[in-house]
Amino acid sequence: MKEFSTFQGPVTLAHGAGGRLSHRLVADFAQIFNNPLLAPLADAALLNLAAGRFAFTTDSHVISPIFFPGGDIGRLSIFGTVNDLAVMGARPLYLSCGLIIEEGFSRDDLQRVVRSMAQAADEAGVKVVTGDTKVVECGKGDGIFINTAGIGLITAGEDLCGEAPEPGDQVLITGTLGDHAVAIINAREGLRFEADIASDCAPLSNLLMPLLKICRGVKWMRDPTRGGPAAILNEFVMNRPFGIELEESTLPIKPAVRSICELLGFDPLHLANEGKAVMVVRGKDCDKALALLRGNELGRDAAVVGRIVAKPSGRVVMKTLIGGLRVIDLPAGDLLPRIC
Amino acid sequence: MKEFSTFQGPVTLAHGAGGRLSHRLVADFAQIFNNPLLAPLADAALLNLAAGRFAFTTDSHVISPIFFPGGDIGRLSIFGTVNDLAVMGARPLYLSCGLIIEEGFSRDDLQRVVRSMAQAADEAGVKVVTGDTKVVECGKGDGIFINTAGIGLITAGEDLCGEAPEPGDQVLITGTLGDHAVAIINAREGLRFEADIASDCAPLSNLLMPLLKICRGVKWMRDPTRGGPAAILNEFVMNRPFGIELEESTLPIKPAVRSICELLGFDPLHLANEGKAVMVVRGKDCDKALALLRGNELGRDAAVVGRIVAKPSGRVVMKTLIGGLRVIDLPAGDLLPRIC
Repeated sequence: MKEFSTFQGPVTLAHGAGGRLSHRLVADFAQIFNNPLLAPLADAALLNLAAGRFAFTTDSHVISPIFFPGGDIGRLSIFGTVNDLAVMGARPLYLSCGLIIEEGFSRDDLQRVVRSMAQAADEAGVKVVTGDTKVVECGKGDGIFINTAGIGLITAGEDLCGEAPEPGDQVLITGTLGDHAVAIINAREGLRFEADIASDCAPLSNLLMPLLKICRGVKWMRDPTRGGPAAILNEFVMNRPFGIELEESTLPIKPAVRSICELLGFDPLHLANEGKAVMVVRGKDCDKALALLRGNELGRDAAVVGRIVAKPSGRVVMKTLIGGLRVIDLPAGDLLPRIC
Repeated sequence: MKEFSTFQGPVTLAHGAGGRLSHRLVADFAQIFNNPLLAPLADAALLNLAAGRFAFTTDSHVISPIFFPGGDIGRLSIFGTVNDLAVMGARPLYLSCGLIIEEGFSRDDLQRVVRSMAQAADEAGVKVVTGDTKVVECGKGDGIFINTAGIGLITAGEDLCGEAPEPGDQVLITGTLGDHAVAIINAREGLRFEADIASDCAPLSNLLMPLLKICRGVKWMRDPTRGGPAAILNEFVMNRPFGIELEESTLPIKPAVRSICELLGFDPLHLANEGKAVMVVRGKDCDKALALLRGNELGRDAAVVGRIVAKPSGRVVMKTLIGGLRVIDLPAGDLLPRIC
């Protein structure tokens, strides 16, 4: 991996001021990202696109701590946007990168984060083609915040099938719940459980694009980040003529994650994931989808966790382990600040 | 203008946590931005694009103070990205918006900023189609930071002419220098000169797209933000077989800006602008370009300020008022932190 060639000492306000040091820092970034679309370092990247349907999204990342088991803010900032594109059925192509750095941030940490972004972009098959760097005074930020925006291509035959969800459709999740949130909780000062839990931070495009190409019965997908599956499923069914019934016994949750949730009183359905998708699949295509997902390393713990139901419409309910029916609501309050 | 319908009190961490309050806040934003591409509030906006050449860019805005004469961080965040597209010869189409808000930020200020973004987007003819909101703890940010990324369309016949710059080409600037920087200096606590100077914050697409359509001799453009014309002109000529010679007597600078620069020891060529472009135009098209620029309210103070020269190559020099030749270098150090 390339080194910062010209940059010494911690980040200073001058690195964001548009002069000599900014110019050199940007040249160092370009060397690490190393692609011909970024290389001209113009005010915008020039892209030749064929006619088609595209997805465009953005995500800022303010996670604390910035390095954690299973990832760092750099990987997260690439995969966060890659995943938002992938769940829309779009193949991620191009990313922008906006850094907001606090004065005094370490050169080595910055280099580690930027290299990590470059490696993550390679893993996801996307290119970081344009960027911006701002520096704020010490005490007016928190180390580093990273925004990425992304453009993805939706190709007919590799996209969502476009059919309306209906009773009989199944709800799948591509793997275990809550790993990211619990890894972050665990990494935060004062909460160090002796558990070997890593963030699930991963590029979902590498799992979902091959699925969509072969299984044409996928009707809807989302990645359950902040607010977890509870938030996205509620947003999905809100004011719709159907609801969702989850089956608690089928939720894939690692034992260590389950223990920490019980200890701290967290509901795994409220916790953030960074490499999982929740999807609604036609009933008859469910087995095929499950097999395809499980055949991929990123989906090996995939499970059917519920179904679309006619009633109660607009709500998410869950059959609990003891046989009751519990309403799963939108999470209220701030469960875990700065989880992504 | 639409009001926040559900949001009371200051911003809390829960507004960024992905649950109920996040959901409502995002619905309020969507109502203010009010366009059908954003309205689904999916993980990404879906765009139908014709085949073509596009520009893609991003800018984060961390300006302090966030409200200032002539604009605010909201307008700046829209025009900043619009202008980066416009100087590449791209008509701005779609913008993303990533907000990083400090806990405790005022509801009214947030509403004012978001409304201002919506109005600025209307003025520039762009749509904010996707967004993200994060909240960081009090003391870990500074009010509000805004990232925008943007996609613009480059149309043959309305773009840069693609010819290499050569001696005889003229350097134009579309208006007075340094207004934005001086307005911000003036608005900052402790530096209140009694001058009536407003930021030049404006959407350059409304000036440059009509110019490019009629005048086909524009070879290069940039907007001189951080680092001012000194930075962009040096980046332009660096390692090229030509240089630039500026003529100090022709630089358009408002008297009040000039006075404050003299008082504080600032070089107007180093100061940020937010509604100006610097361009290189074929010698024979220069009069036409100047007339077109001056016929537009955004370009009424346009001037020819220099020319492309064979020597010294790779450098920017300036004929001073007293007849000397001064090297204009890349600015060093941090002139004015958080100017945009």
